[in-house]
This record gives sequence, structure tokens and C-alpha cells, in this order.
Amino acid sequence: MDMYEIITKKKHGLPLSETEICGFIDGYTKGDIPDYQASALMMAICFQGMTDEEILALTDAMAKSGDELNLEEFGTLSSDKHSTGGVGDKTTLIVAPLAASLGCKMAKMSGRGLGHTGGTVDKLESFPGYNTSLSSSEFFEQVRRHGVCVIGQSGDFAPADKKLYALRDVTGTVDSIPLITSSIMSKKLASGSHNIVLDVKYGSGSFMKTPKEAELLAKKMVKIGSMKGRNVAAFITNMDIPLGHGVGNIIEVKEAIETLRGNGPSDLTEISLSLSAALVSLALEIPIDEARRRAEENLRNGKALEKFKEWIFAQGGDGSYVDDPSKFRLAKYSLDITADRGGYIKSMNTELVGHTAVLLGAGRQKKDDPIDHSSGIVIHRKTGDKIHTGDILATLYANDERMLLSAKETFLEVYKFSENEVSVDKLIYKTVVK
Amino acid sequence: MDMYEIITKKKHGLPLSETEICGFIDGYTKGDIPDYQASALMMAICFQGMTDEEILALTDAMAKSGDELNLEEFGTLSSDKHSTGGVGDKTTLIVAPLAASLGCKMAKMSGRGLGHTGGTVDKLESFPGYNTSLSSSEFFEQVRRHGVCVIGQSGDFAPADKKLYALRDVTGTVDSIPLITSSIMSKKLASGSHNIVLDVKYGSGSFMKTPKEAELLAKKMVKIGSMKGRNVAAFITNMDIPLGHGVGNIIEVKEAIETLRGNGPSDLTEISLSLSAALVSLALEIPIDEARRRAEENLRNGKALEKFKEWIFAQGGDGSYVDDPSKFRLAKYSLDITADRGGYIKSMNTELVGHTAVLLGAGRQKKDDPIDHSSGIVIHRKTGDKIHTGDILATLYANDERMLLSAKETFLEVYKFSENEVSVDKLIYKTVVK
Repeated sequence: MDMYEIITKKKHGLPLSETEICGFIDGYTKGDIPDYQASALMMAICFQGMTDEEILALTDAMAKSGDELNLEEFGTLSSDKHSTGGVGDKTTLIVAPLAASLGCKMAKMSGRGLGHTGGTVDKLESFPGYNTSLSSSEFFEQVRRHGVCVIGQSGDFAPADKKLYALRDVTGTVDSIPLITSSIMSKKLASGSHNIVLDVKYGSGSFMKTPKEAELLAKKMVKIGSMKGRNVAAFITNMDIPLGHGVGNIIEVKEAIETLRGNGPSDLTEISLSLSAALVSLALEIPIDEARRRAEENLRNGKALEKFKEWIFAQGGDGSYVDDPSKFRLAKYSLDITADRGGYIKSMNTELVGHTAVLLGAGRQKKDDPIDHSSGIVIHRKTGDKIHTGDILATLYANDERMLLSAKETFLEVYKFSENEVSVDKLIYKTVVK
Repeated sequence: MDMYEIITKKKHGLPLSETEICGFIDGYTKGDIPDYQASALMMAICFQGMTDEEILALTDAMAKSGDELNLEEFGTLSSDKHSTGGVGDKTTLIVAPLAASLGCKMAKMSGRGLGHTGGTVDKLESFPGYNTSLSSSEFFEQVRRHGVCVIGQSGDFAPADKKLYALRDVTGTVDSIPLITSSIMSKKLASGSHNIVLDVKYGSGSFMKTPKEAELLAKKMVKIGSMKGRNVAAFITNMDIPLGHGVGNIIEVKEAIETLRGNGPSDLTEISLSLSAALVSLALEIPIDEARRRAEENLRNGKALEKFKEWIFAQGGDGSYVDDPSKFRLAKYSLDITADRGGYIKSMNTELVGHTAVLLGAGRQKKDDPIDHSSGIVIHRKTGDKIHTGDILATLYANDERMLLSAKETFLEVYKFSENEVSVDKLIYKTVVK
């Protein structure tokens, strides 16, 4: 494997062969190919792109670089939902039980939060007793019995991607559609689900800044997944506004429960229904309208909420919190952020909302930082809302008053205002199906 | 110094500030910036290029990263000649004494050969006793007295370039005009000469494959040198044909002596006169025609040859070899390569000629390989020549018969033939002066 040859080939815009791509991934994972050659190749790919065949080869090589979850026993019912990372995105907490209540097998490993994006596993640990590290046989048994199980990453999935992503992260080579596609899809392939629904975010705090870019990424991911025989659908959604009203672990769990009760915010409800319907439609091979009807019904009749409680309980969590969310204790101190002017909210910097949550203790700056499940932000007013001087825009929660004050400084930069009425981008820009 | 910021800035085509470039070079030389970030930046530069101001800052930062030779005592007379690397290029052996005989101060540090290109210092060591490692005071004293001194690299000149070049060499980031410019010119600036004449090669075995590319590089180097107050001229010359008839240390020294006697091959004589005249014109501030006239005169009247002998002698070498070049002993074994067909020589692969010389023992594969001064190639027929079956095209010399046979295999690929007459590119494509 002549790495020099591979770099110069890509630099001159020539496609790499499957053998070359596999050789690179194999050599890089083993440590035979040094970081400095890998980063040069990554930069050349940022400029020259990759063909679908190259992306497929790269995705496949990374998927096969470590453990792979075998979900074959669930046939075409195994289903997974993935978001490219958002602020206040608690949809997994809603989609997993909703889709499971309709027959999908949601066998999911999920990450912890880092930086401005939260992690589902952290949110679930808001329930006292919830066990995120089941053994493999416990994990499979729970999916068989209850149709839903969410644990933390165990095993070594797509280690090639992990190593390469860490390198890309420090060499300015993250924002390449072929590289993002292969990074996400390699993990999805290794996670084994037959049906995959992707929530591709655009806007502040996302990889993709515009809906057009997000659409290109979505199409590429759907294509690569389909080439590997998976059912894939993707939603391109707006991350210029936080999803729902809560950011922070307990705050988000409570909001998810409200939504499962049918009383959630309209944006969160809509996206949860859309994602769930897509999964159900793919898994049961029924028309999307019929899947949507069933999803709405199970939200209305309490079956989704019941499945949620069953899941939390099965995984060791205290299910009584689902019935009585007031048992969740929010942080000791709170601080209202009020509007110092009237008018309209022109825009919000969602990335800063995420950073504020980190400053309040709800998220991590570094990988092994502890987090405070009870802190976070409740957002009362969002982009497009009309406001009057003195209106409460948001409330910050923390267990340390100094944290509250320093977070406030950051949060004050979140909102931009306007004299005039503001039009808001729709929540779902587009849906991409094979 | 945020290296991530620098990489992404360049990736997006924005110019880097002088502070950013200096910070990068400083941090990279010290080892604070890792190779993988440097190689990503190099690749981004290959795609996005650099402004003249950026190239100047990079050149200057690398020139100042280590020792700098102070030639101020020689005022505007200090002169240097640099070739971008050729096969059979022995012009320094001719230009140095010729220009010195006309008043230039040739204080030169020169490299050893590596790969298919030979090194002046290796060639000079063909003279028994020639000392390539003088002390600094001996070096300056010889320049003062004799106007010419050529020693091996001592001290640590442009270490940043050395480190960065080694990285570029293995990451496919050599062929960038801004990077080649800064690499060459940083060493030239650090070597201190006021007048610099560059021989920019194009064709097989050169960085630059076409005269147009070589011209771009030449113009950039002249511009950067001028911005630093140096007198710079550049010649764009054809490397698709070896220069002169000899490749190999003793073989080239003998050819240089012949040329200094006025009996050299026309291409070697022409380029030596052109380079020398340019240096003399810059150093003495006289018209190029007048400088050329003086150079031709000193070749004719023996003064250049006399200066050569004086120089070799001053540096400890046995000057009697200049008077009687038959004292040089060629390698024990020789092998004629004959034409197996008639016609015309259509082209030659000069890079392969260089590789053949390495296989004969005349050059190095790796940095510390020993070399055999007496081996090499005498080329009898070159591109454009009419030939008949059985004509001797070249003679290979080696001290080991097996080397001779393996070198022959390689050398047989050097020539391409044609039925029809062949037109030959002129030797000097263009001259670039500020």
C-alpha cells in the first residue's frame, strides 16, 4: 500500500480504488500509516470530493474496522434513529417508545453529550436506577420483550472512524460531505439496524449551515445506506431554533414525557411524529400516511407513554417518575432572562444556547467531565415571537450561583431582535427517501 | 497561535497574516505544532496557493529559523548560483571560477547528491585532498583571497525548511509553486549572497514538467528575492536532455575542465556562459552584453581555468589533475550501449539517466550511502541525433560487473527512437530578471 501514491492520486482528482481505500483504513487503524499522511489525504478529499463508489468503500471499510452489532434476529423490524446533533434535541426519548409501540425493534446504542450537543444516555440517566450498561444478552432480551432498549456505547464500533474523526477535528477537515457521510454511515452500518431514519440538522450549531448543504449530505447518506441494502430516510430540519422549550437533562426528559402525553410543544411533537412514522412505514412496509395515522393514535391513546414507562422500568429506572414528573428535582437556583425591549425575536444562536447549558453544568466541555442532570434552560420565547419589555425570555437553572451568572453573560448573546414581524423557516425543510 | 484557525482560513482561500505564518514556522520548528496539522496546511496551500506577501513571510520566517551566513563584507559582489536540480549538471564547477575570475565573490555552501541528482560537493571530492569542511574563518579567508570557495553544508541553515520539506516529500505536497519558492529562496536568503542566479529546470526529472510551469516558479523566485533586496535572475532551461555528455563525479569534473579550456560541449558551454554573465552583470552593474563578452574572453584566455586550479589548490585539492585530467582514473569495467536500429533519437528520460548513475555507484539512494567517484555514464548521442544500427549511444562505467549489468537494464529505457527527423527544444527557454 503506497500511501504517497494514494495521496497524490486524490490530490489530482482521480478516484481511489476499493483496494486503496481499504488499505488506507486498515493501515491507519493499525498505526502503520502516520497521522500526517492521513491528514494530507483528508484535506485533499475536502477539495476533490469522492465518488459514490469511493464513499461506499470508505464507509464499509470503517464499519468493518471493529465490532458490528448483529440484529438479524429482528429481521426487517430493527430500527434506528440518528440525529446529526442538535441543541435541546430529545426526540429519541419520544421516537424510540412511539415506534416500538407500533412494532419497530429499537435496539440502540447512544452517545453521551459533548460540547454544545446533549446525549441521550445522559438524559436517560435522569431516571434514578436507569442502567445504561447492560450485558449483550440483557440488551437483546430487552429488545425481544419490550421492543426498545437504549444503552451507552459498549464494544468498539467503527474504531477507524473514531481515530480518523479525532484527526479531522484538529486538522480542519470535518466539513466534507463524503467524509461526514462515511463517518455517520459507518457507525450506522456497524449498529446493524435494517431501517435508519436520519435527522439532518442545518443552521447554527450544525455541521451544515444551509438547508441546501444539509440536503446534499442527506441524499448522500440515504444513497450509501441503500447501496448497503438498508432502508434509509432522512429529514432535513431547522436547527436555527432550539427544538421544544427545554435544554438540560431532567428538563428535556420532562418535556419528552409531556410530549408523549400529547401535550408537547408543536415543533417537537411534529418532528417526533414524522421520524416515528418514517421508521414504522419502512419497518412494516406500510404507506407513510397510514404509519403517521398510527403514530398519532398511539400518542393520543397513551400507548407510546405506556411503552416509555415499560422501557424505563425494564432497564432498571424508576418508572414512577413517568407518572409523576414533579418528582424530578430541578437545580436549586434559577434566574429569569427578561426582554429589555419590545418587538420580535429575529433569530437565536442555538450553538450559544448549548454552550450556556454546558456553563450551567448540564453538559460537558471535556469527555470525562461530570454533569448535573438538574440544571439547564427553559426557553419561553423563540424566533418569530412577539415580545414586550420585561417578558421572560428564558429561565436558567444551576446548583451554583456563580455558574448562573457566568452562564447569563453567554446567554444574553443568544437572541437578536427586530422591530418588524419575522418570518420563520419551516421546521422540516425536506424529506429524502431512497 | 491557533493552528486549527490557520488551517481552516487557508482551506477557505483566505490569506494568512505574517504573524500567523511566523507563528506556524516557529511552532512547527520547535515541535509545538504536530506534523499532522502541518501536512493538512501544506495540502490546503497546494490547492489555494499563496499571495506574494504570504510567500515572502513564509520564506523570511524559514530563512530566519536557523543560521544565516553574513557576507556583508563582500558588499554587492557576493554571488551565488543555484540549480533546481538536474542530471549531469556540472555548471557550478564552471560558473564559480569563471564568475570569480571576473570579480564575483563566490562564497558557496553546496549539497551532496541524492536520488537522481548529483551534488557539487561530491564532484569536487574527486580531487584528492579537496577539503569540503573548512572552518568559518578559513572559508571567509579563501573567498577574500581567491574569490571562490565551495564547501559542504555546515551549520543549520533554514532548519524549518528542512523539516517541512521532509514532511512535504511524504505527503504529496511538493509540487506547489509558493512552497517550492519559499523552500529554495529561504535557503538562498540564509546563504547571504547579494546576487543570485537561478537555473530553473523543466522536463523529465524536474519538479516542473513544462517550461510554462518553470516560468511561473522562476518569476515567483525572482520576485521574492527582489522584495528582500537581492539581485535575482533566473534561466528556464531544458532538462529533457542531459547537460553535456557526462554523468558521474570524475566524468563530470573532466568535462568541466574541458569546458573551462574552451573545448566543452556547446550546451554546457552556453549555459555556463549565460549564468556567469548574468552574475557578473548583476555584481558589477554592467550591461549583460559586456558581461557576456568578458566571460567569453576569460574562457578563451585561460583565466577561468587558472582560477579553477587556484581554487582547487587553495582548498587542499591536487591541482595537477586540472593540468592533466588523464590522472583521473575511471572505473574498472565499462559497457557500451549500442543502437539496435537506425533513425533519430526522439527523446531521453533524464531521470532514468540519473537513476542509472545511482545504480552504477555514482550517486546515493539514501542520505548516507557511500559513492564511487569513478563510475558513471558517458553519453555519446542525445535527443535529435541521427543514428545508425550499431552506433554507440553511451558507455557505462562501474567497478562491479553486476552493477554494470543491472544498470544496463535501466539505461535501455532511456532512449526513444523515431524514423523521422526530430526537433529539439532550445536549451534556454527564457530569462527572467526583476
